[in-house]
Amino acid sequence: MSESDTVPCITLAQGAGGAAMRQLVETLFAEAFDNPYLAKMEDQARLDLSALQAVGDRLAFATDSYVIQPLEFPGGDIGRLAVNGTVNDLAVGGARPLFLSCAFIIEEGLPLPLLQRIVRSMADAAREAGVKIVTGDTKVVPRGQADGLFINTSGVGVIPKGCELAATRCRPGDAVLVSGTLGDHGAAILNARGELGLESQWSSDCQPLHGLVEQMLARCSQVRALRDATRGGVAAVLHEFAQASACSMRLFEAALPVRPEVRGVCELLGLDALHFANEGKLVAVVAAEQAQALLAAMQAHPAGHEACIIGEVLAGPAGQVQILTGMGSERLLDLPTGELLPRIC
Amino acid sequence: MSESDTVPCITLAQGAGGAAMRQLVETLFAEAFDNPYLAKMEDQARLDLSALQAVGDRLAFATDSYVIQPLEFPGGDIGRLAVNGTVNDLAVGGARPLFLSCAFIIEEGLPLPLLQRIVRSMADAAREAGVKIVTGDTKVVPRGQADGLFINTSGVGVIPKGCELAATRCRPGDAVLVSGTLGDHGAAILNARGELGLESQWSSDCQPLHGLVEQMLARCSQVRALRDATRGGVAAVLHEFAQASACSMRLFEAALPVRPEVRGVCELLGLDALHFANEGKLVAVVAAEQAQALLAAMQAHPAGHEACIIGEVLAGPAGQVQILTGMGSERLLDLPTGELLPRIC
Repeated sequence: MSESDTVPCITLAQGAGGAAMRQLVETLFAEAFDNPYLAKMEDQARLDLSALQAVGDRLAFATDSYVIQPLEFPGGDIGRLAVNGTVNDLAVGGARPLFLSCAFIIEEGLPLPLLQRIVRSMADAAREAGVKIVTGDTKVVPRGQADGLFINTSGVGVIPKGCELAATRCRPGDAVLVSGTLGDHGAAILNARGELGLESQWSSDCQPLHGLVEQMLARCSQVRALRDATRGGVAAVLHEFAQASACSMRLFEAALPVRPEVRGVCELLGLDALHFANEGKLVAVVAAEQAQALLAAMQAHPAGHEACIIGEVLAGPAGQVQILTGMGSERLLDLPTGELLPRIC
Repeated sequence: MSESDTVPCITLAQGAGGAAMRQLVETLFAEAFDNPYLAKMEDQARLDLSALQAVGDRLAFATDSYVIQPLEFPGGDIGRLAVNGTVNDLAVGGARPLFLSCAFIIEEGLPLPLLQRIVRSMADAAREAGVKIVTGDTKVVPRGQADGLFINTSGVGVIPKGCELAATRCRPGDAVLVSGTLGDHGAAILNARGELGLESQWSSDCQPLHGLVEQMLARCSQVRALRDATRGGVAAVLHEFAQASACSMRLFEAALPVRPEVRGVCELLGLDALHFANEGKLVAVVAAEQAQALLAAMQAHPAGHEACIIGEVLAGPAGQVQILTGMGSERLLDLPTGELLPRIC
């Protein structure tokens, strides 16, 4: 981190609850996330319940901590990831994401300009996703007791009446779709760490999915379940769906969308793109008769223009995920058991 | 951490989104926090809005990350602290705390029995505070990239109609109260780290304050503002109140409740108990005519039985906090500027 030799850095005092912390909160966080809720500087944001009830009948509540390394990577940074990741956790429940909290754990010595870039990036991502960051927390731990920066975001949103997405609702005969290419985030992070020795750079797919979900649900009434495919990749999502619904999932290998550069990384490492993390892709299960309509709805949205039908739900064996190969044979797709890549998100 | 030589420890695979993580979540977190919201294993909890609206008209939303060292200390542990701290952030806004999220950042190698004790302690604290832990996240980072365990909790609660607590509402003539002795948590943690060389052990004041707040608000209509006095102590709270209300605060030195052992630590270190962290104490500002009634309401609750009137609000100078000494002289109480004690909460 050569930046830290020549620029102002975060000090322990900036996490101590005194004057230095107040100054950091007021000049950096409150200014970047500017909104009337945060400006009140109370220990909790206060949100009008009748305004929430105008959107739907259930509150969605989600949380995620982000520990990605490197903090900045092609296609995003930990701040953008922390906003989009939690926005997506709300969106795949059918919720309109509305408000986020944001808690920083900062290692003493983090270059202030780096933190400023990340915070501005969060503010931009929040604006793009239509959410407000309304409450927060700042901790600073001594050098060596964390690695740069960890961010937690929690989010609240509202689920419109009648929207009933759940992994348990998958039924034999349903179609399985993905919203785009597999494994872009995982491969981009691996490449950004320089562990592959490849010269070219490519980008994470880090993006918010709430607009795509809204369009899908507006056009198709028979969507059963949605899930964004982060750690553990599409494979982990399909295993969750198969287990929750006591069905099995069958994928068509030839239909799986994988970018050539990601395919190259997979071949290099002997890994499967289905196990790689994504940060802007979702898996959808829909009644067979609406599969084409859902595909069209997804492809009509920028976040889903490379959407594909990749498989189908079968009656059993319960909990299993199979792949139908191009040769017509079948193999089982395991839930990843080891550690593919630490600090991917 | 001698425990780590002989017992099972957390591995990177347990944060990887695959089979090992699922097993940890199901056997440890979901079992300890057992409730129907969490059992659904979706990416977001779904909470009925009409049930929330039956409690009040505004949602309170708060977040805090906990990085305390040591993880277990006399009177509590990081898990109990993480529950009570966020419960208290909701309570001092007048909200009834209802639901928490819980996100773990675990260092590879953390002894599993230690994590189990902390998780059970969180579950106990949540039951005692009447809140449910309804959604969560687990990350594991490689050895040396975090220090044991960090926990974030975010919380939602509901503020009853007509309850309008705010730091901006303090008025000249109002009385200032604290719910009990000052600095117990900070002194206990300092002592637990063995940095003081003292033989005796004493306890943190870590406790939930929502019951106390409920009793205070039920009996007194003129409470202006409440704040739990954590990092930065009572001094930081009073500075926030003075700044937000453009008033000044005057404390009566002789009225400040400090345990003898905490006073001893302060004298040893040349520090002020007003700057020490608390984890179960609040500062209240109330109209003068209700000061005695509020004091009685607080003393009638176990979490406030040592409550005292410690000062009053003056017209100005805006933003200042003064102490009236036993000798009748006045001195200014600064907002702490340096780093008193890292990783106190």
